[in-house]
Amino acid sequence: MAFKALLFDVFGTVVDWRGSIIAEAEGWGRSHGLDRDWAAFADGWRAKYQPAMQRVREGQSGWVKLDDLHHANLLELLDEFGISGLSEQEIDHWNRVWHRLNPWPDSVAGLTRLKRDYILATLSNGNVALIVNMAKHGGLPWDAVLGAEVAGHYKPQPEAYLKTAGFLGLAPGECLMVAAHNADLVAAAGCGLGTAFIRRPTEYGPSQDFDMEPENEYDYVADDFLDLASQLGC
Amino acid sequence: MAFKALLFDVFGTVVDWRGSIIAEAEGWGRSHGLDRDWAAFADGWRAKYQPAMQRVREGQSGWVKLDDLHHANLLELLDEFGISGLSEQEIDHWNRVWHRLNPWPDSVAGLTRLKRDYILATLSNGNVALIVNMAKHGGLPWDAVLGAEVAGHYKPQPEAYLKTAGFLGLAPGECLMVAAHNADLVAAAGCGLGTAFIRRPTEYGPSQDFDMEPENEYDYVADDFLDLASQLGC
Repeated sequence: MAFKALLFDVFGTVVDWRGSIIAEAEGWGRSHGLDRDWAAFADGWRAKYQPAMQRVREGQSGWVKLDDLHHANLLELLDEFGISGLSEQEIDHWNRVWHRLNPWPDSVAGLTRLKRDYILATLSNGNVALIVNMAKHGGLPWDAVLGAEVAGHYKPQPEAYLKTAGFLGLAPGECLMVAAHNADLVAAAGCGLGTAFIRRPTEYGPSQDFDMEPENEYDYVADDFLDLASQLGC
Repeated sequence: MAFKALLFDVFGTVVDWRGSIIAEAEGWGRSHGLDRDWAAFADGWRAKYQPAMQRVREGQSGWVKLDDLHHANLLELLDEFGISGLSEQEIDHWNRVWHRLNPWPDSVAGLTRLKRDYILATLSNGNVALIVNMAKHGGLPWDAVLGAEVAGHYKPQPEAYLKTAGFLGLAPGECLMVAAHNADLVAAAGCGLGTAFIRRPTEYGPSQDFDMEPENEYDYVADDFLDLASQLGC
């Protein structure tokens, strides 16, 4: 069956969350006279991401969108890094750094080529506002912003994949999941979606030692979105 | 409060549903040797739209997306017009004419200007697949496809407006509803959204005698999207 839509993981696959946060934090630290390990700050924030979503997946609360999980995690993080006295407005601005993440160098050009032949939709755990604002910031040409919030389920729960395909009026097998993470692709394949692994070997910094290579048979394995576009004939 | 997002009604406001359906039906009729009043066919299909949604609004069923309401209405319509013997595939292709509606002449150029300064989201009763495919067909540059299906409520129910604003992380007053229909704008204003009336005096054909002019005080009244862009300083 031919693929009609490409569904994209976003954090790490499309945008460089770690480099973007470090860069903004370094500038902010200098202007506030705060000297911290900002790479550890970025990594620490991200480390709280899966446990926070897990509490939602397990039904410990109703639906909580990622902006709100990020916000609660940020308050912990600021405490851990000994940063205090920020106004609610400053904290909110910091929290929205996730709306200002920068694309990898190939992302916009690659997506623009892919968009000619496929529907491009996000299948991220990021909430709609986060992904929409990020797209405005970075020029990401999505046809639709779908994923966890509109599905009411965080990946890798099957509903996130199946409802996103359903909103597009497509069978799972008509959708190709594009991600830099093996676990995401395994979950997508379990729902019947096609799979494309993108190598992003510095997503977690220079000492990353996981998700360096595809760990399963996928439909496509690509070095970046330009490579994927070429493999798909776009 | 400054508007951050423009939320668009689509059928009639952005695309010419009537002209598009008539044009496709005339071609189809010629190639099938069928002579019918295709304007009446288009109008008859549209006339079944509100009653079908009303049954969903009243809770006579669970959620039914517009593609499925259109399909049921099409079966009635084909019977009324004495058209029989179509395959399920032909009927499905006909039903998807709503995915192939053409923009008004100003729509793409106007939206492209507006997109530089605002988030552009759909707030249509059309389901996500319908609006996404229509955007691919016509080159409509949406930032997000939201509205009835993701809200789980058909306009003019308040949830359709409020949940769409909520997905964008915006207060109702940060959103400007753009529509060619007074009733849509009245409902949006009742939810706290700003309002922009667009004149589309031939949406229902040459003898249209309603929604010709704004019937209330709106924030903006424009002749088309280029005029709206100019009024908004885009």
